[in-house]
Amino acid sequence: MKTVKYLLTEDRMPTAWYNIQADLPVPPPPVLHPGTGQPISPDDLAPLFPMALIMQEVSTERFIEIPEEVQAIYRQWRPTPLFRARRLEQALDTPARIYYKYEGVSPTGSHKPNTAVAQAYYNKQEGVKRLVTETGAGQWGSSLAMAGAFFGLEVLVFMVKVSYQQKPYRRTLMEAYGARVVASPSEETNAGRAILAACPDSTGSLGIAISEAVEVAAQDPDAKYSLGSVLNHVLLHQTVIGEEALAQMELADDYPDIIVGCTGGGSNFSGISFPFIGKKLRGERDVRVVAVEPAACPSMTRGKYAYDFGDTAKMTPLIKMHTLGHDFVPPGIHAGGLRYHGMAPLVSHLLELGVIEAINVQQLETFSAGIQFARAEGIIPAPEANHAIAGAIREALRCKEEGVSRAILFNLCGHGHFDMQAYTDYMAGKLRDYEYSEEEVAMALAGLPAVG
Amino acid sequence: MKTVKYLLTEDRMPTAWYNIQADLPVPPPPVLHPGTGQPISPDDLAPLFPMALIMQEVSTERFIEIPEEVQAIYRQWRPTPLFRARRLEQALDTPARIYYKYEGVSPTGSHKPNTAVAQAYYNKQEGVKRLVTETGAGQWGSSLAMAGAFFGLEVLVFMVKVSYQQKPYRRTLMEAYGARVVASPSEETNAGRAILAACPDSTGSLGIAISEAVEVAAQDPDAKYSLGSVLNHVLLHQTVIGEEALAQMELADDYPDIIVGCTGGGSNFSGISFPFIGKKLRGERDVRVVAVEPAACPSMTRGKYAYDFGDTAKMTPLIKMHTLGHDFVPPGIHAGGLRYHGMAPLVSHLLELGVIEAINVQQLETFSAGIQFARAEGIIPAPEANHAIAGAIREALRCKEEGVSRAILFNLCGHGHFDMQAYTDYMAGKLRDYEYSEEEVAMALAGLPAVG
Repeated sequence: MKTVKYLLTEDRMPTAWYNIQADLPVPPPPVLHPGTGQPISPDDLAPLFPMALIMQEVSTERFIEIPEEVQAIYRQWRPTPLFRARRLEQALDTPARIYYKYEGVSPTGSHKPNTAVAQAYYNKQEGVKRLVTETGAGQWGSSLAMAGAFFGLEVLVFMVKVSYQQKPYRRTLMEAYGARVVASPSEETNAGRAILAACPDSTGSLGIAISEAVEVAAQDPDAKYSLGSVLNHVLLHQTVIGEEALAQMELADDYPDIIVGCTGGGSNFSGISFPFIGKKLRGERDVRVVAVEPAACPSMTRGKYAYDFGDTAKMTPLIKMHTLGHDFVPPGIHAGGLRYHGMAPLVSHLLELGVIEAINVQQLETFSAGIQFARAEGIIPAPEANHAIAGAIREALRCKEEGVSRAILFNLCGHGHFDMQAYTDYMAGKLRDYEYSEEEVAMALAGLPAVG
Repeated sequence: MKTVKYLLTEDRMPTAWYNIQADLPVPPPPVLHPGTGQPISPDDLAPLFPMALIMQEVSTERFIEIPEEVQAIYRQWRPTPLFRARRLEQALDTPARIYYKYEGVSPTGSHKPNTAVAQAYYNKQEGVKRLVTETGAGQWGSSLAMAGAFFGLEVLVFMVKVSYQQKPYRRTLMEAYGARVVASPSEETNAGRAILAACPDSTGSLGIAISEAVEVAAQDPDAKYSLGSVLNHVLLHQTVIGEEALAQMELADDYPDIIVGCTGGGSNFSGISFPFIGKKLRGERDVRVVAVEPAACPSMTRGKYAYDFGDTAKMTPLIKMHTLGHDFVPPGIHAGGLRYHGMAPLVSHLLELGVIEAINVQQLETFSAGIQFARAEGIIPAPEANHAIAGAIREALRCKEEGVSRAILFNLCGHGHFDMQAYTDYMAGKLRDYEYSEEEVAMALAGLPAVG
């Protein structure tokens, strides 16, 4: 029994990103100005983002061309392979047909360069000299650092202090690419100094790091801010994954009955699923789409669909999304990329419309799934990706119970080579599950702004 | 300026390994029995290896078919890409045309699965239940652990104790695949107990770990020993790299003037270069081939071409090779895969015949080269691969000096995602170079056996 690879030739790499906003039956709620409570205009965002990305943020064109220079860099590792996981199917003894798209072949080992390269390109085009961003575990920060090196842009990364101290390897990778990495909260910003004054021992959070990055970018005329998930243009850039997968499923002479993706901010989930959801929305082909989030940070399954801030210091616009509240600090689970209090507004909108489903899974189940996957398929997955695998395995076992063969597609968004401490802890029995009471969730949501 | 990828379609993956023994003008000196000093027979090796591998060890057939089951697994990540490093050429401002073959796309991130999968297959075919091996930094051990998981073989790995303690992540990877990992020297073997009795604090060495693995394999009728480099059959399996590169250079409409490879035991160097050297030996096409070894472990450039043991406890047959003496313990440089006292006998033989050249480079130069490569090409290389990059950059700068454009091909044998501590130390200024005096080399060589 063997794993089967469906590889597109380079000339079949997509030349356009798919924009799901063209096919939505109802437009998503507007983004609101935090001061006025009114919808923001493109100009409001101009201090933070280059105009090309702002235009993508609000575009309703179905396809947006990938610039030739971005395509040229994509081609270093794209099209990425799509595999039929025959050895995993055999291990599960399931009639299901399990497919996975593998984004770990990128230089930084995840899907993040798909948008990092595009963002660096557009910023360079508009004369920007440096990019400022935040990172938790570092998948995003290292990808932007690499893209900055390619385009000759300085990159400044505010890295959540606890990760900066405990996970030095991604920091080293960012520095190897030439980026400057600062532990957040830092003395370099008002937001950081305020936190440190109130709480000198703060180990930081993604929300705080976003506040610092936004502050620096807004004040430096040569700098812009860069975000690795959540926003529409970020999700757009990731659709190259699903566009390829559409063509590869054709090569496999199959079509997914179910697509499973893990969700933190929503970018890899959107990347694999939006092109298929587009066909569903246009009435061409149905598909069940399941978003899998950690039980320790259950924005879609336990949070509220409401207007909220993207950061802790309330500097970002208000976006309507599934949120646990901008003050929510998730526990230190090892899927660092899924530890965000909110969800991409487009993903939240699709959930609200009933186009997609969401479930949450516990940490131990995800690592067990990851180990089973590694033994069958060889690739040790990133802890984030283990959530997608756990969801796919649940569906495959359901096929077995029901005696039905369904095609299940998931995105293996990255390898776990930088995350071996997580596996070490798991195998030593040091990891645990997390379950919130109704009271705890209600308390987290109490700080939501009174808007919308 | 962009990196260009030359990708073979799957149907062009080689279906046979290339055996350089078919084209040697003079056969290599025989392997000798340590007791009798006489050439060993295949039967002498039967306790350690399955007969199919022993036959490959001595075969002089030019091509040996890759079994279909091995091909099926290779196809998960093979053919691997070959890139033209245009961004690196630009950074160096060189007229050279630099190509690199990239083996880091394998599940364990290096070229080692090419032989691990083949070895596991042949052992499984002959009814072996478990494989015993040794590993230093863990590239080899993790690849064999993965191959064992694929074929349902138990894997026992003796891991050099200092690596076991300081580099837990590759150990975790091996354990995730289901292998048992033992710190060497251990209490599980006579060889290990003898070392511990004499030196309770021994941190181990590759030579000691080989002794332990060989001892266990020889005593267990259901077990065989497995080696990740040095032996002829291991080099043979790696030629799939160079066979692909031959076809890919054709796609690029070019041919290497110079091939550069890093050498520890010699397997990745042989993999990229032997198919090209074959054409040279057959008088079809000339090529300069440069082996790059660390100045801290300079077997070919400072050692002696002599019969020596492969391990510290003198349990292996005697092989004629460039060696620093089986007692030589190299310093703790970060290119763990290059810390072996000897060299593959076939590589040594080619050097002795004048078919290839060898140079050594210092550690700091290799890391500087690796960082420059990462900023240009995005991939952060393994410290071993940095030796090949340093050699290629030297040749590219020579092209610039001489105003000549030459095609330079090297093998990027693995990514550095498991080796970030090395980069952390390098960027913190904690690494150093090593230079041996004539006296130190003479002292290391004093223990060579009086044979041959």
